[in-house]
Amino acid sequence: MTMALDVGRWLKLVRCNRPLIHNMTNLVVTNVVANALLALGASPVMAYAHEEVEEMAKLAGAVALNMGTLTPDLVAGMILAGRAAAEAQIPVVFDPVGVGATQYRQQAAQEILAQVPLSVLKGNGGEISHMVGVGGSVRGVDAQTVGSGLREAMAEYARAHQLVVVATGAEDLVTDGQTVWVLSNGDVRLSEITGSGCMVTALIAAFLAICDAPCQLAQMAEASVAAITCFNVAAETAARMAQGPGTFVPQLFDALKALTPEDVNRRARLKDTVA
Amino acid sequence: MTMALDVGRWLKLVRCNRPLIHNMTNLVVTNVVANALLALGASPVMAYAHEEVEEMAKLAGAVALNMGTLTPDLVAGMILAGRAAAEAQIPVVFDPVGVGATQYRQQAAQEILAQVPLSVLKGNGGEISHMVGVGGSVRGVDAQTVGSGLREAMAEYARAHQLVVVATGAEDLVTDGQTVWVLSNGDVRLSEITGSGCMVTALIAAFLAICDAPCQLAQMAEASVAAITCFNVAAETAARMAQGPGTFVPQLFDALKALTPEDVNRRARLKDTVA
Amino acid sequence: MTMALDVGRWLKLVRCNRPLIHNMTNLVVTNVVANALLALGASPVMAYAHEEVEEMAKLAGAVALNMGTLTPDLVAGMILAGRAAAEAQIPVVFDPVGVGATQYRQQAAQEILAQVPLSVLKGNGGEISHMVGVGGSVRGVDAQTVGSGLREAMAEYARAHQLVVVATGAEDLVTDGQTVWVLSNGDVRLSEITGSGCMVTALIAAFLAICDAPCQLAQMAEASVAAITCFNVAAETAARMAQGPGTFVPQLFDALKALTPEDVNRRARLKDTVA
Repeated sequence: MTMALDVGRWLKLVRCNRPLIHNMTNLVVTNVVANALLALGASPVMAYAHEEVEEMAKLAGAVALNMGTLTPDLVAGMILAGRAAAEAQIPVVFDPVGVGATQYRQQAAQEILAQVPLSVLKGNGGEISHMVGVGGSVRGVDAQTVGSGLREAMAEYARAHQLVVVATGAEDLVTDGQTVWVLSNGDVRLSEITGSGCMVTALIAAFLAICDAPCQLAQMAEASVAAITCFNVAAETAARMAQGPGTFVPQLFDALKALTPEDVNRRARLKDTVA
Repeated sequence: MTMALDVGRWLKLVRCNRPLIHNMTNLVVTNVVANALLALGASPVMAYAHEEVEEMAKLAGAVALNMGTLTPDLVAGMILAGRAAAEAQIPVVFDPVGVGATQYRQQAAQEILAQVPLSVLKGNGGEISHMVGVGGSVRGVDAQTVGSGLREAMAEYARAHQLVVVATGAEDLVTDGQTVWVLSNGDVRLSEITGSGCMVTALIAAFLAICDAPCQLAQMAEASVAAITCFNVAAETAARMAQGPGTFVPQLFDALKALTPEDVNRRARLKDTVA
Repeated sequence: MTMALDVGRWLKLVRCNRPLIHNMTNLVVTNVVANALLALGASPVMAYAHEEVEEMAKLAGAVALNMGTLTPDLVAGMILAGRAAAEAQIPVVFDPVGVGATQYRQQAAQEILAQVPLSVLKGNGGEISHMVGVGGSVRGVDAQTVGSGLREAMAEYARAHQLVVVATGAEDLVTDGQTVWVLSNGDVRLSEITGSGCMVTALIAAFLAICDAPCQLAQMAEASVAAITCFNVAAETAARMAQGPGTFVPQLFDALKALTPEDVNRRARLKDTVA
């Protein structure tokens, strides 16, 4: 490790600031996303109407856009919210759920990328492989295969688009184009429940809300690393307490709530390398 | 206490009648609202299409309107359902979630108030402070500050609009304009999960469904007090069983289901004062 | 029993194939439906936009349509998805939630039946009584009464429309018009939570995805019997572990995940009779 990342300090700052996170997320996970943010110590709000998304986004500390159950109306709303946030230097994370599965998801993701200045692009390995152009595939909304040379392609994409790229999986990758972080916490139970990836997206938003405006890429990469690590360390605790995927979910919120800065720093498994 | 309120008797009546409750609620909480009503002993139905909301509302014992994730289409549907219910002397409770956070929420809440003869207006302390005009603020959908003189303003608003006003918080306030009830049950865990307030709104509807038509304000205030008290006493049990906010949710439904009339009467902490 | 149905073998096949199930389901249950499919060993995807439902349906092993919170837009989308699936010989199960409660649900169900070649029509006893024309009634979305002669009418309907008909209840009935299966597993807790019926619909889709194309009615009936039996046996386990309806839900997912082919075969309570 070339430099130490104090994840626990990030966690403390989130809890002190209790940032308001504006979520435009999918119909499947709204409840667990809200509960994950509350358990972390942030304040979730969901708002979708074109009539209010710009105003709500500007009130928030960060905005999380997730196209898991996209419609043309939702995509248009996301663009309104995302642009309003970006203009006010409020960070925006975008999760192109299921991109590559259908033409429409491909088209919608491209439109959002073109219209909204993003802080973080986050997906599973299959989605990000697809986005950064190294193949890879998704099946519905799950990663099926990851493209080869993903790390390098992510870093190049981050530099080209001036954003942080996050790919989740057995190992999670985070890069700002200069550094690539490899994160090894987590548990296989996360792949046995719906909404794991969507909760991570929302948590990244909560940590981005702590960055100093205008946010620097390097700091937003650290925020993303801290968010994923808190979530994954909590998941490890929850997996030990749970008997299956059903009991894992409530244990995950308990563990997120109980997570201490010391605990997460002690258990964090991070590696950073030059991109 | 100037008169005894037999909360347990109300609970028994709900369970005997198993009222059908038509919910038009937000995307975040539909599942927990349905489960809370089932655990209580009521029968939930969610219906949103303009083509059916009037018919569904008229089949119900009461209607719960919640604007947590409002859209123009949903607001129009709520007005259709609310008006149809009111015409058939079916009680309507309205929860102006997040009112005050954006212009659009303000406008939508005013439109619903103007168009639908409500039985109960229910929100958190910030929302109700805003509605009754004593300041107060919300942040996203959470109460941030409560206005001073809230109690008096609520009572005046109740008299002016001839409805019951409910403000939830560490202490819950219920008034029909003549009496102000102060309820002291509950647990801090309720603020650590999403949907607490929305579940209360739905439960109030279930108790309103037991009132004799045409419902009197005083009786509807008692119904609201009974609903909140059942929910909050169950929350106290759940908090003792839970290790965190995640395990609190399933415990809350278990406790609501297991709650006995005797138990709730023994544990109820109510105070009523002249408004 | 005239022939043995190896439910465990069906379960093994689902887990080996991990079929992608395209769900167009209601707003109340999306999360639990996704988690039930994951716990079983299938891969859920939810997609609603007209722009992508045909493509997504054709990628899936089966499609589950559920009109619990129907709108004209959703109904039109279901017809697009259902027709695309049927043309590609992909099985479609349809759950006419709350049919009979309102005129609009009646009309929407008839439109879907007329437009989409269904593999399985599945509802609770009240809904199916209504659909097959023997009276019966629903209250909101719950069965209130079941028509007399339901079994015979279901078999006749199955023969006339060349599909499998499933009616859930204390006993579940499944028929392809030739055989009527009577299933006696399950637990009363299933009626105390929201989404039981919707999860069964999704699980039937997962088992239909295993049938050889073009699917034969007799095989699809067996798939339905196997799906319901796996779910109900898991529910029996969960009920023993749970203290109430709240803790029952996580236990249900744990039990579905842990269910072994041997266990389900040993505990299955099936009877098949000539229609």
